[in-house]
Amino acid sequence: MAASRTAKVATAEIKGDAAQRLFDAALESFAAIGYHATTTRDIAERAGMSPAAVYVHYKSKLDLLAAISRVGHERARECLETALASEGTHRERLAYAVGEFARWHAENQTLARVVQYEYKALPAARRRDIKSLRRRMQDDIENEVVAGVAAGEFMTPDPSGAALAVVSLCVDIARWYSPTSGRTPAELERLYATLAISMVT
Amino acid sequence: MAASRTAKVATAEIKGDAAQRLFDAALESFAAIGYHATTTRDIAERAGMSPAAVYVHYKSKLDLLAAISRVGHERARECLETALASEGTHRERLAYAVGEFARWHAENQTLARVVQYEYKALPAARRRDIKSLRRRMQDDIENEVVAGVAAGEFMTPDPSGAALAVVSLCVDIARWYSPTSGRTPAELERLYATLAISMVT
Repeated sequence: MAASRTAKVATAEIKGDAAQRLFDAALESFAAIGYHATTTRDIAERAGMSPAAVYVHYKSKLDLLAAISRVGHERARECLETALASEGTHRERLAYAVGEFARWHAENQTLARVVQYEYKALPAARRRDIKSLRRRMQDDIENEVVAGVAAGEFMTPDPSGAALAVVSLCVDIARWYSPTSGRTPAELERLYATLAISMVT
Repeated sequence: MAASRTAKVATAEIKGDAAQRLFDAALESFAAIGYHATTTRDIAERAGMSPAAVYVHYKSKLDLLAAISRVGHERARECLETALASEGTHRERLAYAVGEFARWHAENQTLARVVQYEYKALPAARRRDIKSLRRRMQDDIENEVVAGVAAGEFMTPDPSGAALAVVSLCVDIARWYSPTSGRTPAELERLYATLAISMVT
């Protein structure tokens, strides 16, 4: 778990060790000084490769950011979807899903931070798919809230507002969380599960 | 209100028009491409001044970031404190304060984003005062929650967790909010006031 807070992200989607090293190097550099201040040379150096070698695997620095953004959003969504597909009452399922989603953002802080902070650096055309992944995460939570309201388990006049708040709370963990911030990922999981339920009951 | 979403920040604290223009130019550039990617030359150009003129008013790019960070945190705290000093029940006061704090983050999005996203770019020594301002905002909300619990108006086993969540929710507005995101600052004010109360009752 501690290891997952570092920049390293094992990505089965990325073909080959060199591409993986570049992905990790770009992630580290974007996290440290931001996308715009990072040069292709910085990334190559961190990966122990020549600048020319970068282009064998990625067309541009932007391609690396797009890959990081896609992987980050897909992982977050996977975490959320798996939890929302679990058995139980709506209350149990929402609590579990929000807890898992919160913990994911603490445990994958570097990835989550870069994905959120550098989102605006993606040009509109590269944002489209990501935008729909983001939209879907919020919709999936909203649907769970709506189903819980229909089943008489939840009561809220604004399921969409509750979903927005739940996603926002979890995502923001990537901004403020640190291992010295006084709450462990497991404690955040419990706190956020409770807060989510209180928002809809 | 629309105007306050732009980068311009009228700061009585800053002496003189040239210093103010540099402050605004730095804020715009940090918001657009980040602190590390911004050069003193970028700031001077945006302000319509020579790079040398920057140093008449600010010792360094870091001094500008520190000034922006201080002003941003002081404004946010002022907004929160004024609301928390208002008359009424604990419930009314907390709802009002959280609503105001939420709206502030939508209306001052550029300032709030730079303050949050570039916080890590400040060296530890320059972070100290800012850190205590951040801590105090959370403490002030926590104290209000604790007082509300003591008065029998609120019920939560974790006032500190509730305060953390309330601050986090409001701060994160600066990340995701846009005038096209479907909710106005006034609507966010109402939604977040309601959510805060639901978290502590």
